[in-house]
Amino acid sequence: MRPLIAITLACSALIAADNKKSLTIAEQGSYFVGGETRHLTPPPNTPANSPAAAPGDITVNQMYVQYQIPLDAARHVPVVMVHGCCLSSKTWETTPDGRMGWNEYFLRKGRSVYLADQVSRARSGFDATIINEVKAGTEPPSKLPNVLMASHQVGWTVFRFGPEFNKPFADEQFPVQALDEFYKQMIPDFNAVLPNPNPTWKNMAALAVQLHGAVLMGHSESGFYPEESALMDPSGVRGIISIEMACRTDMTAPQLATMAKIPILVMFGDHLGDIQGEGPFKNIWTNNFDTCVKFVDQVKKAGGDAELMSLPKLGIRGNSHMLMQDKNNLQLADLILDWTDKHVEKKKAAKQ
Amino acid sequence: MRPLIAITLACSALIAADNKKSLTIAEQGSYFVGGETRHLTPPPNTPANSPAAAPGDITVNQMYVQYQIPLDAARHVPVVMVHGCCLSSKTWETTPDGRMGWNEYFLRKGRSVYLADQVSRARSGFDATIINEVKAGTEPPSKLPNVLMASHQVGWTVFRFGPEFNKPFADEQFPVQALDEFYKQMIPDFNAVLPNPNPTWKNMAALAVQLHGAVLMGHSESGFYPEESALMDPSGVRGIISIEMACRTDMTAPQLATMAKIPILVMFGDHLGDIQGEGPFKNIWTNNFDTCVKFVDQVKKAGGDAELMSLPKLGIRGNSHMLMQDKNNLQLADLILDWTDKHVEKKKAAKQ
Repeated sequence: MRPLIAITLACSALIAADNKKSLTIAEQGSYFVGGETRHLTPPPNTPANSPAAAPGDITVNQMYVQYQIPLDAARHVPVVMVHGCCLSSKTWETTPDGRMGWNEYFLRKGRSVYLADQVSRARSGFDATIINEVKAGTEPPSKLPNVLMASHQVGWTVFRFGPEFNKPFADEQFPVQALDEFYKQMIPDFNAVLPNPNPTWKNMAALAVQLHGAVLMGHSESGFYPEESALMDPSGVRGIISIEMACRTDMTAPQLATMAKIPILVMFGDHLGDIQGEGPFKNIWTNNFDTCVKFVDQVKKAGGDAELMSLPKLGIRGNSHMLMQDKNNLQLADLILDWTDKHVEKKKAAKQ
Repeated sequence: MRPLIAITLACSALIAADNKKSLTIAEQGSYFVGGETRHLTPPPNTPANSPAAAPGDITVNQMYVQYQIPLDAARHVPVVMVHGCCLSSKTWETTPDGRMGWNEYFLRKGRSVYLADQVSRARSGFDATIINEVKAGTEPPSKLPNVLMASHQVGWTVFRFGPEFNKPFADEQFPVQALDEFYKQMIPDFNAVLPNPNPTWKNMAALAVQLHGAVLMGHSESGFYPEESALMDPSGVRGIISIEMACRTDMTAPQLATMAKIPILVMFGDHLGDIQGEGPFKNIWTNNFDTCVKFVDQVKKAGGDAELMSLPKLGIRGNSHMLMQDKNNLQLADLILDWTDKHVEKKKAAKQ
């Protein structure tokens, strides 16, 4: 063995042995997927010295992607993680109480990790034109989007931190002592300004193609985006991980045939029926779970490999909606990695 | 020497030898600085089944920070990078044409790097309450903020890609062939909803204290934020790097005395007088430069260590407003690192 190779192998062993300290990566960076040009005409009465006085073009519907690639990336299929409502890619990073997030854990397990801010959120930006138009009086206030802002109180219900505000479940897995830090992750959700279909779906599908195959992972608002992406273009989608959302139960036979070609894991936490939701949140989680029972059954009947993983049925109790931030988040990551090894990667080995 | 130490040293040497490939870091993660709770009352006539029907609290004015720490971090003072108008921390990452950004380059040069999304931008979120209030009719459209959206056309002028739209300067350093990727970085700027003083200033000062000392770097809209942060609390601010902005020329003697205790580098690129700006952009860069000439002079007269670095005067031609993305961005980073070594780090050595 040549000395350089010997040293390199020794380095890999040394680094792997100390999972919690230094981290060696092959490459990192960020870029955008998708995006279109929109031509703007300034609203009437725009002051001549305003930056908006001249007509101009802006770019909209782009998706910001931040990635890290491990040294041994070729061994595994890349994973694309997309956050939910009123959140950003911060979802997958350091937990509110300062533990390792799934982004770094998957990376340390040899996966290339791509974090995408949804179109209309965070570093992807959004089309704010309507706000300036309403301010200028050229459009009525009713045209403004419904901006979703999850209050702390709504968070307790929807994210299942406890049965009611400020009362955690006895076995709650979310680090509720760090909720002030979690609340800072909750940012305005402008998905209401998006065209239909949601450009994030097309961008996720395009990203999977660019990566020559990827596992797409969604959560909550984006939980079913991987499936929607695959319906638009399944060619890059090697596997789907859908976490805590409503499933579609209206797919046609050709659509289910597409789903049946992709391994699908649906994951839900605990206490689905134990929250005191009101209005749109009444029975939200039991209803969502039921739609996924139906969807998974439909995919299976179409010959697919779909699995609905209910954590309490595995004896894992107390998980909130924010599985990737719960105290047992790395245990849950291991379940996903194991599923990926068996259902997605095995296919890769068989093809080669 | 024990074998483990020998291998570790060999690893470090191997990694350092290949600056463009693998990267080893001690730690990475993200968290928030600052933030306050705001209590919301739902607008009248909010439908009972709306998520906004119940009163609730949201968190506002928090600043998202993403960091990476190198193995040999203790040798250098950490650097906090804050982006400008209509942009996010993407500013400092992979350039539009795919080269290494300053975030990774500074890291490879042994600096801990902290990227902060300004309060009201990107992953820091913003207070969108007024939008829902105007939609509900409880506030008039005139109360909506002026949302800044930099058009492609404005970008050419303000970022000095060329004398007019789609005509680059002959010696232009910005990678204009990748402008479509750059346009995707430009996102709505909601700084108009912020309270006064801008919470980012306080948060940057607090971050510097948390880090037991940091160099604060700002650009354009945020170019003078390091100085404003130091005026609020200079105790953590070890050095200031201000890139391409207007300087204040109205500081009092006590304020200038504070400035005089911190090494300050102000940096400007080329073609300041060569753009055909109109309205608010007429002579914007020559005017901005002049304010900084005055400010640097005031700090010097107060006994401070301030330097105005004009790149053309150093024989470095063709730099745009986006110095950190220009084709010679790493050469410019070396100028900053060298200045930091001499003006900030030397002080550290003297103190010890």
